[in-house]
Amino acid sequence: MGSLDEGHLCVEFDNGIEKDPETIAIEDAVKVLLQGLGEDVNREGLVKTPLRVAKALREGTRGYKQKVKDIVQGALFPEVGVHDGVGHAGGVGGLVIVRDLDLFSYCESCLLPFQFKCHVGYVPSGQRVVGLSKLSRVADVFAKRLQDPQRLADEICSALHHGIKPAGVAVMLECLHIHFPNVESVFLDSKHQGWVKVLVSSGSGVFGNENADAWVDFLGLLKFRGVTVEKILSKDSTKQSWCPSHSSPMAKIPPELVAANPEMVAAVASILGSLGEDPSRKELVETPGHFVRWLMNFQNTKLEMKLNGFACGITDLLKPNGEVGSLNNKHMHSELNLSFWSQCEHHLLPFYGVVHIGYFCPKGFNHIGKSLLQSIVHFYGFKLQVQERLTRQIAETVSSILGGDIMVVVEANHTCMISRGIEKFGSNTATIAVLGQFATDPAARAMFLESIPDGTASQIS
Amino acid sequence: MGSLDEGHLCVEFDNGIEKDPETIAIEDAVKVLLQGLGEDVNREGLVKTPLRVAKALREGTRGYKQKVKDIVQGALFPEVGVHDGVGHAGGVGGLVIVRDLDLFSYCESCLLPFQFKCHVGYVPSGQRVVGLSKLSRVADVFAKRLQDPQRLADEICSALHHGIKPAGVAVMLECLHIHFPNVESVFLDSKHQGWVKVLVSSGSGVFGNENADAWVDFLGLLKFRGVTVEKILSKDSTKQSWCPSHSSPMAKIPPELVAANPEMVAAVASILGSLGEDPSRKELVETPGHFVRWLMNFQNTKLEMKLNGFACGITDLLKPNGEVGSLNNKHMHSELNLSFWSQCEHHLLPFYGVVHIGYFCPKGFNHIGKSLLQSIVHFYGFKLQVQERLTRQIAETVSSILGGDIMVVVEANHTCMISRGIEKFGSNTATIAVLGQFATDPAARAMFLESIPDGTASQIS
Repeated sequence: MGSLDEGHLCVEFDNGIEKDPETIAIEDAVKVLLQGLGEDVNREGLVKTPLRVAKALREGTRGYKQKVKDIVQGALFPEVGVHDGVGHAGGVGGLVIVRDLDLFSYCESCLLPFQFKCHVGYVPSGQRVVGLSKLSRVADVFAKRLQDPQRLADEICSALHHGIKPAGVAVMLECLHIHFPNVESVFLDSKHQGWVKVLVSSGSGVFGNENADAWVDFLGLLKFRGVTVEKILSKDSTKQSWCPSHSSPMAKIPPELVAANPEMVAAVASILGSLGEDPSRKELVETPGHFVRWLMNFQNTKLEMKLNGFACGITDLLKPNGEVGSLNNKHMHSELNLSFWSQCEHHLLPFYGVVHIGYFCPKGFNHIGKSLLQSIVHFYGFKLQVQERLTRQIAETVSSILGGDIMVVVEANHTCMISRGIEKFGSNTATIAVLGQFATDPAARAMFLESIPDGTASQIS
Repeated sequence: MGSLDEGHLCVEFDNGIEKDPETIAIEDAVKVLLQGLGEDVNREGLVKTPLRVAKALREGTRGYKQKVKDIVQGALFPEVGVHDGVGHAGGVGGLVIVRDLDLFSYCESCLLPFQFKCHVGYVPSGQRVVGLSKLSRVADVFAKRLQDPQRLADEICSALHHGIKPAGVAVMLECLHIHFPNVESVFLDSKHQGWVKVLVSSGSGVFGNENADAWVDFLGLLKFRGVTVEKILSKDSTKQSWCPSHSSPMAKIPPELVAANPEMVAAVASILGSLGEDPSRKELVETPGHFVRWLMNFQNTKLEMKLNGFACGITDLLKPNGEVGSLNNKHMHSELNLSFWSQCEHHLLPFYGVVHIGYFCPKGFNHIGKSLLQSIVHFYGFKLQVQERLTRQIAETVSSILGGDIMVVVEANHTCMISRGIEKFGSNTATIAVLGQFATDPAARAMFLESIPDGTASQIS
């Protein structure tokens, strides 16, 4: 949405100039949350986290201050249509669609960002059309608020209808909400799905009726060939929130959690207020509790409890498979695609992906059990983390069990890379740690990297 | 790169407040260009085009004013590494990669935006790591300038090396430059490739040598398994510009073009100056000529010359194939995936894609020849256009030849949707015109839409 000076402004903001009272209030609330996690808010990696979170949240909810009228005005262009009775085209009746707009919004139930693909169509009327980019910009105004998918679709639709005054507007959103497992259940549910996906739509004018012919044209152009109008979630079916914080078996917020962390819950409520929201709005009443419950997964003080006796050790070695290759008579083994879930300590936002571990087996062992390696990965995931540290910690821990020849590759998607101002939706990251022979022997590294299947990066994105 | 107030600033700018002298100078130059195309600069669709072009160019070259130091400072975090001799991990030596950053830059040879995928890696040193998003932000600083792929890679690499002071930096860019056919050659070359693609890389420190082991790790993590270091363009091989304005058979700028349009060439040179560039810099000397030659493809006055006798008509009807289906004893035919090239009149930026035409044949004809339909599509493409108008004009023209039952679907990528502030890289658009039976009969529309193969949208993106 660039202005020429935005880079400049951003820097000033980084330097602490121009902070407004809302930003300071959010910073203070984030400090309470960090302290509630048992963290030292003056630790170097965390000292600017409150400001980063405040900036991201304010930037991510700037839609409250934006007016659709300002965006659409000046971007309505006269465009001749064909004569009535002949057909529909141009500025009178030819369907216009913009597909595959990647956007993100904030879930009002849990305060986490969610990604969505937005498809917008409208049927021009009155011999005028709107600049195509405005369909994206208007969608973004409503995305940059605390949202629920259906309301988001409805608000985009309604705003475009009033702004453009066309014959009708159709909006379809494919929304993806991250679904972190709870730290308590992560070992119980190995088939945990990392996402909740919903498809919602909204229509006005000629799209006002879900059975209208206009929808058939719209869906035909979206190539949602398999998706019939009936399959699109009707408004009734989304009355139940899609957010995992509502729908998981852990949905009920334990009263003891709120009782034990009243300052944290109050801090989140105050953040909602600082963003210009009403924390007592029906949909937001439970949000502070949801957010705190999720955040407590990454508590610093309870780490040793998480592994359920992991420290007692190496119980399931001596498995006969998993050999990748051998080099100088040493046997290389690997364990690929161990899932991990973590929390970026710079932005208090999730990152997640897969860990690949390669190692040369010590004498007398064939290979180490997958469940132990997965436990180590989970152990270091459920913390306030940075990917580089996670990678090192896994490598060092595996090394302490198996000896010194270890290579760890972590491939991740960072919510902080797809949200905030950066919005690099397709990007993903990889980090390496190499110990022992892997550090000195390029052939060993290459052999392990070769063993990682090509599809890995796309699996996580 | 969001600041909280950018939406607000943007609106003020739209309303004409805060225009600086450079913006006004670019506006004036763009008016000269529009007049050179034979356009009326006061026509409603064009009246704000000079301001839009000026804003896009200034926004798209804001990198000249940005400092990498401001971006990286405050985002360097202490991070423990493993002991020297044990291996490389964390803040000492573990490779860190951010993959698949979608960015755009401006080609210094022709002033058109080009897209690229950026992969950046670095090896941390001195017990510190940089925030992952900064790799993208720094790349963007150099992308937002007039560039050549190799220099872009080198500048990103060098800036990150000096900013982070790591053991080494690796940068790899996959750059895509749009390659419009010249209006004179479009009928001669049916196999015209719409893109020029180059892969460039740059390395510092441990990546300083192209044969360094570090490159093997980097490439292994990029999954460029088929790409050996040797295959990456060496710096020597890119001394010849990749830009089609240089490398096409039309590369030499005809002196008569410059002589005939001295005001336009001078106007483009003045734009370069307004952006803070030196128009006499070696790589920029021919840029005004290239831009004007490309722009003249869309000249308003020469349109009737473009079709090489198209008006004389229907010479190749009566072909026996191409029937899609029939409805009420009328036979529906379709011609799919006719390529088009056009120029968005709101932003003076290319849009391109495919046109699908469906029609019911009049008595006595089986179907209309593909070459005639392709000619009509090219005719309306090579203009300052909007997609809605293009769609209508094709429908009306085909209707005037074949009678009234016509459906036209245009699927397009708009450079103005992937560049400027909007940067919606995966997005694409579709427009429909329906005449006669297609306007009144949803089953006819559905039958035609069904005949468009699923892959079309991905073909154009």
